[in-house]
Amino acid sequence: MPDPSSPRRISRRGLLGYAGTTGLGAAAGAGLVVAAGGGSPAPANPAGPAAPVPGATVSPWGAHQPGVAQHPPAVTEIVALDLLEGVEREALGRLMRVWTGDVEALTAGRGAPGDPAPWLSAAAADLTITVGVGPGALGADRFGEGPSGFAEVPPMTHDRLEERWSGGDLCVTVAGRDGTTVAHAVRRMVADAEPFARLRWRQVGSWNGTDPDGRPQTGRNLFGQVDGSGNPRPGTELFDDTVWVGGGRWAGATTMVLRRIRMDLDTWDDLTRDEQERSVGRTLADGAPLTGGAELDDLDLTAQAQGRLVVPLDAHARRSHPSLHGGRRIFRKGANYTREVETPRGARVESGLLFASYQADLADQFVPLQRSLDELDQLNEWTTAIGSAVFVVLPGFEAGSWLGESLLT
Amino acid sequence: MPDPSSPRRISRRGLLGYAGTTGLGAAAGAGLVVAAGGGSPAPANPAGPAAPVPGATVSPWGAHQPGVAQHPPAVTEIVALDLLEGVEREALGRLMRVWTGDVEALTAGRGAPGDPAPWLSAAAADLTITVGVGPGALGADRFGEGPSGFAEVPPMTHDRLEERWSGGDLCVTVAGRDGTTVAHAVRRMVADAEPFARLRWRQVGSWNGTDPDGRPQTGRNLFGQVDGSGNPRPGTELFDDTVWVGGGRWAGATTMVLRRIRMDLDTWDDLTRDEQERSVGRTLADGAPLTGGAELDDLDLTAQAQGRLVVPLDAHARRSHPSLHGGRRIFRKGANYTREVETPRGARVESGLLFASYQADLADQFVPLQRSLDELDQLNEWTTAIGSAVFVVLPGFEAGSWLGESLLT
Ligand code: HEM
Ligand code: HEM
Repeated sequence: MPDPSSPRRISRRGLLGYAGTTGLGAAAGAGLVVAAGGGSPAPANPAGPAAPVPGATVSPWGAHQPGVAQHPPAVTEIVALDLLEGVEREALGRLMRVWTGDVEALTAGRGAPGDPAPWLSAAAADLTITVGVGPGALGADRFGEGPSGFAEVPPMTHDRLEERWSGGDLCVTVAGRDGTTVAHAVRRMVADAEPFARLRWRQVGSWNGTDPDGRPQTGRNLFGQVDGSGNPRPGTELFDDTVWVGGGRWAGATTMVLRRIRMDLDTWDDLTRDEQERSVGRTLADGAPLTGGAELDDLDLTAQAQGRLVVPLDAHARRSHPSLHGGRRIFRKGANYTREVETPRGARVESGLLFASYQADLADQFVPLQRSLDELDQLNEWTTAIGSAVFVVLPGFEAGSWLGESLLT
Repeated sequence: MPDPSSPRRISRRGLLGYAGTTGLGAAAGAGLVVAAGGGSPAPANPAGPAAPVPGATVSPWGAHQPGVAQHPPAVTEIVALDLLEGVEREALGRLMRVWTGDVEALTAGRGAPGDPAPWLSAAAADLTITVGVGPGALGADRFGEGPSGFAEVPPMTHDRLEERWSGGDLCVTVAGRDGTTVAHAVRRMVADAEPFARLRWRQVGSWNGTDPDGRPQTGRNLFGQVDGSGNPRPGTELFDDTVWVGGGRWAGATTMVLRRIRMDLDTWDDLTRDEQERSVGRTLADGAPLTGGAELDDLDLTAQAQGRLVVPLDAHARRSHPSLHGGRRIFRKGANYTREVETPRGARVESGLLFASYQADLADQFVPLQRSLDELDQLNEWTTAIGSAVFVVLPGFEAGSWLGESLLT
């Protein structure tokens, strides 16, 4: 049991140049793990399957915050907070300095400063903490003007949004392999924000991003679909261009859209395999395009069979395909959620996806895509957004600096 | 990605004689993993640290159902169902045969028979599924008379029980390392029970039973306490005598009490370390008795310092100590839960423990212990039972047989 007062552990993952693996139908675009700090992605290593290093820690420092480019671990908890009235630039700076200390300690497996239960941080393997700010935290008195294109997602006709899963001035995303450690880290961050902000909502999801032998794989949502294949791959120029704000005050930031999307598993299960696959354009068995190839291959949107398009006009992966959006892309990260709901006749389980989309320019990259899916997408029949929130993920920070320093000072 | 139609995998854990490890302040009574079927526990191996075998499966067959003696994996989901009117012996037999097929397939990493999304079973490493029956499933028309001492837990003065977390005719406990796989298995079991029973409640918890290097450890609850140290250790005669019903119709069964216990982390965090440790009688750092020794050592209830008892009269581990209960014991298994609750001023997170107690004779072993804690126990100040349910965990079954066969035929 590590002594909570012991010096910061060195990231073994960083030292070892840990790389994810890609294997046929197993690993994926999101299958890469970025080394310490999220700044220097390790190259893909298709030959040598490297199991994740148990007990590795992810460095909190770098040009970008960790938790975006990293391969999704088993558990993700996301909370939004609302700033109390009167919390302005100076108070925000205090909160960000407190949070910076928390992040540095918790991701290293130590208790946060003053943590009454530091031992709950011990198993912090793979913990990442990612801090974002919502529209309400911008403006002259707070973080100033947001990055280009940052604004709420406009209402969509298929939305059935609930207040309780929407909005928020601040966002903390904690991901890791162990639910108890993750919950503890979230609790510390929320507790330490108490003088400044109040919890608005909390959402918890899981992801099956490792195969039975512990190797990274793309993972599946609760429809059983391989989800994430078409993503730009961390470590590529395409990924960097898609995700990170390139210059100006917000250089190194990204924007995050979080949609809580309910999935109707019962009606989905009633479809034939063929109907399910055609609704997206990829196979269920391994996520390969219906037009042939392997999981990580692109779709052939022109392919026909028996006189009709193999990928239908209203298939999800056609409607969202970059070629229909002037090459614009997003980087998606999902977490499967289930939640028990009381009903007069007993309990019911609601299932869905915490759908996070990261992009440099929200208005330019995300909104037109979401609009086009809202207009036409077979998946709309079995999916409904019940929550929506947008945040700017603050730029990364180096040791000795703090979250948002350049924006607040 | 394993082909869901491939033949059943052989339990590698079974083949390798996988053993948990004990290490100072790290592994524990519950640190042993029982080989295939739960029938033949592997011996402790204090010398050679063996990391869990990724991708191992736990055999569903044996004298006892798995999921009791096994070391707790990361995620546990427990559901209770209520039988529909008119579901009697014959229909129960049909349900149990369907569930047997589900359990055999899901724990082997295959889709359940007819599963529309069999791929969600692929990463089924360590999955165990444990089936129990509640008081309402007993009686002449159903499973007959229960084992000796099986009955509801009588009301306790500190209880604040809610219907929505209490009772139930059937119980399914699914545990594994991956929340998505676990949720999928629960969904299949509940869906396949639809002609017979309706979901009553569902509870989800996590456990930090591996250290940062992936080795088994006792784990901690959300107070930060090492929790489970005093347990009888699987693989010992003491464990078998404590847990399994020894003879008669129910030979091989056990009884399970599930208490949903809310923990007030805020007031707990306000205590000094000394107050926290004296409330139980063990240290927070590594769970060792305050009277000296290491985590797995027993308390010295007579030890004094400065003229007072080191372990106070109302300390939890004194009040629950077997020496105060004529040597009677229980086997405890916890899972930490957190759940967001809406309030007029935003969200609040409720935290606690899904406290499961296993014993051969509920009335003889559990009830007097619970009563004595209800009468006097410092922890009552920060803990409140808000749910309570009791089940008989059915005896194990062999390949070719089915769950509860000897009881229903
Ligand atoms: C519960 C809701 C959703 C489900 C179940 C779902 C499922 C999928 C699946 C199975 C794929 C194909 C595999 C892959 O490339 O990842 C896919 C692709 C994609 N989805 Fe979704 N999706 C959902 C919501 C959304 C939303 C809200 C957006 C954006 C507004 C979106 C954007 C995309 C994009 C851009 C692709 C990649 C297209 C390509 O490059 O081939 N999806 N989705
Ligand atoms: C949230 C509520 C509870 C908490 C936080 C808690 C915590 C603990 C802790 C920290 C220990 C010492 C370490 C160990 O031996 O595991 C312990 C021991 C024990 N607890 Fe609890 N406990 C709770 C509820 C209960 C309940 C409801 C019972 C039974 C009705 C129980 C029975 C025991 C027993 C039998 C021991 C072992 C005593 C020994 O052999 O030394 N506990 N508990």
